[in-house]
Amino acid sequence: MAVNLPAPDPAQLLAVSGVELGTARAGIRKPDRRDLLVMRLAPGTAVAGVFTRNRFCAAPVVLAKAHLRQAVRALVVNTGNANAGTGRDGLTRALAVCKAAAAGLDCRAQQVLPFSTGVIMEPLPVDRIVAGLPAAMRDLRAENWAAAAEAIMTTDTVPKAFSRKVRLAGGAATVTGIAKGSGMIRPDMATMLGFVATDALVSKAALQRIARAAADQSFNAITVDGDTSTNDAFVCLATGKGPVARSKKDIGALGGAFAEVARSLAQAIVRDGEGATKFVTVRIERGRSVAECRKVAYAIAHSPLVKTAFFAGDPNLGRILAAIGNAPIAGLDTAKVDLYIDEVRVAAKGGRDPAYREEQGVAAMRKAEFQVRAVLHRGRAASTVWTCDLSYDYVKINSEYRS
Amino acid sequence: MAVNLPAPDPAQLLAVSGVELGTARAGIRKPDRRDLLVMRLAPGTAVAGVFTRNRFCAAPVVLAKAHLRQAVRALVVNTGNANAGTGRDGLTRALAVCKAAAAGLDCRAQQVLPFSTGVIMEPLPVDRIVAGLPAAMRDLRAENWAAAAEAIMTTDTVPKAFSRKVRLAGGAATVTGIAKGSGMIRPDMATMLGFVATDALVSKAALQRIARAAADQSFNAITVDGDTSTNDAFVCLATGKGPVARSKKDIGALGGAFAEVARSLAQAIVRDGEGATKFVTVRIERGRSVAECRKVAYAIAHSPLVKTAFFAGDPNLGRILAAIGNAPIAGLDTAKVDLYIDEVRVAAKGGRDPAYREEQGVAAMRKAEFQVRAVLHRGRAASTVWTCDLSYDYVKINSEYRS
Repeated sequence: MAVNLPAPDPAQLLAVSGVELGTARAGIRKPDRRDLLVMRLAPGTAVAGVFTRNRFCAAPVVLAKAHLRQAVRALVVNTGNANAGTGRDGLTRALAVCKAAAAGLDCRAQQVLPFSTGVIMEPLPVDRIVAGLPAAMRDLRAENWAAAAEAIMTTDTVPKAFSRKVRLAGGAATVTGIAKGSGMIRPDMATMLGFVATDALVSKAALQRIARAAADQSFNAITVDGDTSTNDAFVCLATGKGPVARSKKDIGALGGAFAEVARSLAQAIVRDGEGATKFVTVRIERGRSVAECRKVAYAIAHSPLVKTAFFAGDPNLGRILAAIGNAPIAGLDTAKVDLYIDEVRVAAKGGRDPAYREEQGVAAMRKAEFQVRAVLHRGRAASTVWTCDLSYDYVKINSEYRS
Repeated sequence: MAVNLPAPDPAQLLAVSGVELGTARAGIRKPDRRDLLVMRLAPGTAVAGVFTRNRFCAAPVVLAKAHLRQAVRALVVNTGNANAGTGRDGLTRALAVCKAAAAGLDCRAQQVLPFSTGVIMEPLPVDRIVAGLPAAMRDLRAENWAAAAEAIMTTDTVPKAFSRKVRLAGGAATVTGIAKGSGMIRPDMATMLGFVATDALVSKAALQRIARAAADQSFNAITVDGDTSTNDAFVCLATGKGPVARSKKDIGALGGAFAEVARSLAQAIVRDGEGATKFVTVRIERGRSVAECRKVAYAIAHSPLVKTAFFAGDPNLGRILAAIGNAPIAGLDTAKVDLYIDEVRVAAKGGRDPAYREEQGVAAMRKAEFQVRAVLHRGRAASTVWTCDLSYDYVKINSEYRS
């Protein structure tokens, strides 16, 4: 069902010196699927992260944020169970996983970041995860990015992984990342789970800035269903095995590559949104601020009526205008708003464009990808959000997920 | 598909002295259905209204608000076309309808309130409406409330009308109301369209306070899909043909009856929500303020993941906790939150209640009506919101609405 999203070609995924990945079939929720990932990091790897702002922050997120203060040596990711809404017991279980991984990797539990995704509010099956760790560790190799992308999927139908090479003063650096996510997607800080690594040598502070900027232009600009997960995490790794990024120019170039990989991953999440049949770019222009433009974009992208019209390929423009009118921004003069579907101006000055013919809108919206663009005519700011439609299959997937 | 919502029994609907209603089949969008309503008001009728806060406020709403300053003599309501997103031309067309109605009723156009509901952003077919007015006027009778409820439906499957008698010092007063609405329902000031009338004599200022209070406890406490319409309007009428309501006690009693009728109408809208198979009461207790409780309630009631779990009758409690965690309220301590489905405590102190068995949650949620109750343990305020589930039929209705 994913919209124009081929599975990653393992041959196109570049290994990152200093990062090894191993997966296992631990039977956490379903038998015989990859559901456990261990990432081993070279000593000295800088790690930065942005995390969910959902107040029911999951136990592994709480631990990961705390352990980030240490010299991180490994990440352990399980799918099938989110270990969220599990109270104090959830923390104990997440820590037990860190301890078991640390024993196998010869480091301290506090140097392991745990991540979980899957069903919420059920006890994490620690025994099965611990039993699966040795197999994952035996599998550790730098070339395992494609298998890693597969091991973190939940309702995803396609693994998500991208690589870029970026030229720095000291040579070429690699940036490779994976992500998972398909529903409960309206990241407030980051996606469900995203991991992007480079071999460049960069300070932790610079990496943290790179992570925030990349998240803002990618995972923070997508929505599937407006629900922010309890487990969202986006983690950036820099092993320092490759060229140095210290000058402003190099850090800018590296940040650009991180943002590009993050944006590809974020868009892949929308393309693989639960039940998605359309990939829609919502762009708002000439607002007073980026924040204002983003509010309008999300008002459109979250409206169930707009999303069902996307599904139908129906240019029901009134629903889009009504959604704009619902955005919580002060003093919007609706009589100035222009609206475009791709290059067709469908509304001018707040009303239907007299020159617009419905066939034009139908033609644009029948495509698998199109852009909705509103011009507010009240400032110079702009913002873009990516989203998908709301289809029968969204309801099917989410009403049958647990059964 | 409506949840426990029988069609109103015309014999149970009480006429309101001073209000006559007439309907017609004007062929506005579909042939051979009631789609036009005229309400003629006795001279001296007090009129109060609350209207949508959508910034793309429809043309008829703009006019109705302006005309409210006059001595209102009539309301004209059409279904099939919302005359919204229609710019200046929409105002001209709405005024043309007022003029035609005024000519037939021997008053000024400014004494007519126009209301439209239906498809957005298409030109209002004034000719058809004007051609239908004489038939509606010939039909004017005080007993026509049931036909009026039918004439204002769009995707509603059941007409919505309720009556109450209320005892005042000077005798019994009648309160009768009708409403329509099924999708694009997250009224910000009122429902799509609601009209409630009494024969009591009450000042316009007191009636306006009654209208605001009634809306707040009814139409402002429901959601189907989180979309606020461009045409929402809730209008209260008091003809003064019956007993006087001037004392604090009488105005309180009258306000209570208005609130009761409005709440029945609002709940009827949710029961008839597009594709609804469940009627769910979301109650938040022990918050710091009513506003805070309402934010949490709406975070639950708007979550597509929660709503699809309602549809499935699946006690996927994690989704409800995650929705609570997404509510925009500061400093919520999730470790204090208790959660109940009807009388079953499913979560205690932010985690799964150890005593809870899944069969209990399934039993509660398999019913057509149940309550989700969260106790925040941080104050004394409470609030209730009514909502429905998100089913295949919501997608079907909204992806096929125009085709």
